[in-house]
Amino acid sequence: MSKGLPKRSEDYSLWYNELVKRADLAENAPVRGCMIIKPYGYSIWEKMQAVLDKKFKDTGHSNAYFPLFIPKSYLSKEAAHVDGFAKECAVVTHYRLKNDENGKGIVVDPEAKLDEELIIRPTSETVIWNTYKTWVQSYRDLPLLINQWANVVRWEMRTRLFLRTTEFLWQEGHTAHATKQEAIEETEQMINVYAEFAQNYMAMPVHKGIKSANERFAGAEETYCIEALMQDGKALQAGTSHFLGQNFAKAFDVKFAAKEGGLDYVWGTSWGVSTRLMGALIMAHSDDEGLVLPPLLAPIQVVIVPIFKTAEQLDQIDEKLKPVIAALKAKDISVKFDHSDKYSPGFKFAEYELKGIPLRIAIGARDLENGTVELARRDTKEKTTVPQEGLVDRIENLLKEIQENIYKKALAYREANTLIADDYATFKKMLDETPGFILAHWDGTSETEEKIKEETKATIRCIPLDVKSEAGVCMVTGKPSAQRVLFARAY
Amino acid sequence: MSKGLPKRSEDYSLWYNELVKRADLAENAPVRGCMIIKPYGYSIWEKMQAVLDKKFKDTGHSNAYFPLFIPKSYLSKEAAHVDGFAKECAVVTHYRLKNDENGKGIVVDPEAKLDEELIIRPTSETVIWNTYKTWVQSYRDLPLLINQWANVVRWEMRTRLFLRTTEFLWQEGHTAHATKQEAIEETEQMINVYAEFAQNYMAMPVHKGIKSANERFAGAEETYCIEALMQDGKALQAGTSHFLGQNFAKAFDVKFAAKEGGLDYVWGTSWGVSTRLMGALIMAHSDDEGLVLPPLLAPIQVVIVPIFKTAEQLDQIDEKLKPVIAALKAKDISVKFDHSDKYSPGFKFAEYELKGIPLRIAIGARDLENGTVELARRDTKEKTTVPQEGLVDRIENLLKEIQENIYKKALAYREANTLIADDYATFKKMLDETPGFILAHWDGTSETEEKIKEETKATIRCIPLDVKSEAGVCMVTGKPSAQRVLFARAY
Repeated sequence: MSKGLPKRSEDYSLWYNELVKRADLAENAPVRGCMIIKPYGYSIWEKMQAVLDKKFKDTGHSNAYFPLFIPKSYLSKEAAHVDGFAKECAVVTHYRLKNDENGKGIVVDPEAKLDEELIIRPTSETVIWNTYKTWVQSYRDLPLLINQWANVVRWEMRTRLFLRTTEFLWQEGHTAHATKQEAIEETEQMINVYAEFAQNYMAMPVHKGIKSANERFAGAEETYCIEALMQDGKALQAGTSHFLGQNFAKAFDVKFAAKEGGLDYVWGTSWGVSTRLMGALIMAHSDDEGLVLPPLLAPIQVVIVPIFKTAEQLDQIDEKLKPVIAALKAKDISVKFDHSDKYSPGFKFAEYELKGIPLRIAIGARDLENGTVELARRDTKEKTTVPQEGLVDRIENLLKEIQENIYKKALAYREANTLIADDYATFKKMLDETPGFILAHWDGTSETEEKIKEETKATIRCIPLDVKSEAGVCMVTGKPSAQRVLFARAY
Repeated sequence: MSKGLPKRSEDYSLWYNELVKRADLAENAPVRGCMIIKPYGYSIWEKMQAVLDKKFKDTGHSNAYFPLFIPKSYLSKEAAHVDGFAKECAVVTHYRLKNDENGKGIVVDPEAKLDEELIIRPTSETVIWNTYKTWVQSYRDLPLLINQWANVVRWEMRTRLFLRTTEFLWQEGHTAHATKQEAIEETEQMINVYAEFAQNYMAMPVHKGIKSANERFAGAEETYCIEALMQDGKALQAGTSHFLGQNFAKAFDVKFAAKEGGLDYVWGTSWGVSTRLMGALIMAHSDDEGLVLPPLLAPIQVVIVPIFKTAEQLDQIDEKLKPVIAALKAKDISVKFDHSDKYSPGFKFAEYELKGIPLRIAIGARDLENGTVELARRDTKEKTTVPQEGLVDRIENLLKEIQENIYKKALAYREANTLIADDYATFKKMLDETPGFILAHWDGTSETEEKIKEETKATIRCIPLDVKSEAGVCMVTGKPSAQRVLFARAY
């Protein structure tokens, strides 16, 4: 029941947490910072996975699986990488428990201490590049285009369901190429795949851009990202694609014999999106009544709630709707006919609203007489009574319309909340009074970036690739700037 | 290249290990006992997952995700469970690394010690039943029919790729029911799902049965299993389904308000199959030239190797085959047209034989003239020259025939290697001279079972459900026996 869901305008953060729990998406696990993804939440993640997995395969990638454990020494092999990832991670030190001699239950067996501690992967570059060393000998073995779907662990101090959890699910692509150019093209191709997915499936507009040196992946030469705007005016990084140069090839000695002769280091990329996308999806569209799901990612696109008093009435409704349900399924439209008598129609309406089912059909005795049904859109909350005739086509069209409408609404919100600041005072004022993206000039130095972050909590989300270049002067230092960059406070 | 693959008859174990590596299925990871599943191996696992996942959903189950980490204290809550699983497991004791003060690289930060150690899940009953406690209040919340695809870790001493690895991938179903009867039906339904999958997709005959008390899952009241026979006469447990009674409900205090009033403990089941199935698939069918894959699980069902000298010839072949390839794809038959000039046709033939592609088509200049192609079956190694006309239908039929033939061959092998022993001396002789399944009478006691295991290394694989009951006397003790049970040495 949505009863009592907090309002976004009053406490956005509480609204989000409550929505995630009440819509049966996820909940906190007994281990601090970890989450349990509930069946309904997981079914949305499965829809995302299916679309992304197909896109990866269509662009030539194969899935594989690399181990959960990384020997501690591996992390140190790439200098920048170890600084970025070695800090907060789960460390396996022992491999056995035993009964305590003093009868205090089971304890860690001190004799089963590992010679070298194992790290639960925070990301898999090290173990994968260590493997690529044996997989790559010649240009014939390239490119290697590999992805894995896996769980990873980063011991985060502040966690929030989906947005930042100690363990999370993700995919990580790791590719190896014979030339720099090909690796850069791969990096760009994958950020485009993510952007298309965000826009066309999640109905979430994103800016594509390049991270500043400060925000770059530890071990990358360039990090591409997509950045979205949430309804509270905070930005969310939704996916990244890294051009690794030859950094990991050098750290793990991965060389190949070129077609023209000679040995050279391989060029690498890595790219990933995670269950964080679930958080983005929820926050981008949902309202005070609950989730709003774009039809292309909704596990149930249409729910039918019969309103009946007798078993006979239900039979009549059932008979009337059987061909409609069959026709919807034939069009790959997922439909749930909820004829359970465990709950009242009113309870069901609220429940399906909370869960973001894009279209609800209600049908009762009067509808049977009139040859009609009541259609309710989740996105606009419009209700209309429509003839049963032509219902299937109407539903199909409406689902497309809802998908587009949700995107347009999010885009309009982003446009309205992307402002331009030419001086630092205005910039600060905007952050507090009209939070959103701010396009401003920056002198390109880490010092200025850090000063802004410290003073305002806003970070450079990216140097956007999709915003027109325009020279100017840094709002803080007055030094020259080649283009405006995208600032925001961020998740 | 299959060159030098050891012969099964000479060293079955070495043959298996080499085949797994050379066919690009998997390899050992740098962490002892863990494996890297290579893209080709993983693509077979993905086929298995897709079929199983659909079967689970068709029987009403939903996927979810529970955390990797289990608090140490959880393991102890179910008395039998802790004895079975607490022994050999990976233990996380710390959550941070730091730079060593003496410059010895990174070390575990002693200040980041966890208050309670975390176990990497060896199986998830404890963390899931701890959650079910909050998910189940009333009969309305039942049944809970949940599955998860996940990685689990058991610190095995002796490991072999796919068959027994420290980390492996699996699915684990965990269901909760209002009645004992319903839970038993679920347990039986899922062992039937596994058996059908093994027989109809893996082309691997299995015996369904019940485990003896000794071999039962730690915490279960009854364990159902499927048992297959490998080509070396050793048995392999391929899947299990456990009726948990109210054991975990009691351990985690999971009660529900019945429709009729009153509180009762919930009844549970759990069931799983793992990447071990990959090992079973490989060992059940493959030969001295390499893998033999049943078409329904082959990532590539048909490979086309053009034999050409000039680009013009390749163009001609390409043009001739384009409609064939399109027609095969339209029938959902996966086909690879390998026109790469990196390798010779002979090299490719050996490579695809090693990788178990069910059907190979070769086409050269003479075939173009004659309107023919050469078809080679992987299972029988038959080669035939056939007309291009009607090729698509012929391929479709042949794939079905190959699927059936592989199953029949495995079934005939199993029949020939399932013997009956009436006395212990014969039993022992059979184990050494004609290894396989042995049906023998047993008095039903753990003592006798353990004596047999100790003296012969054979175990009771199951009390078969699909073998006719027939009373007799135990081959060891002479005590009465209600039916023969299935013995074998096993993986």
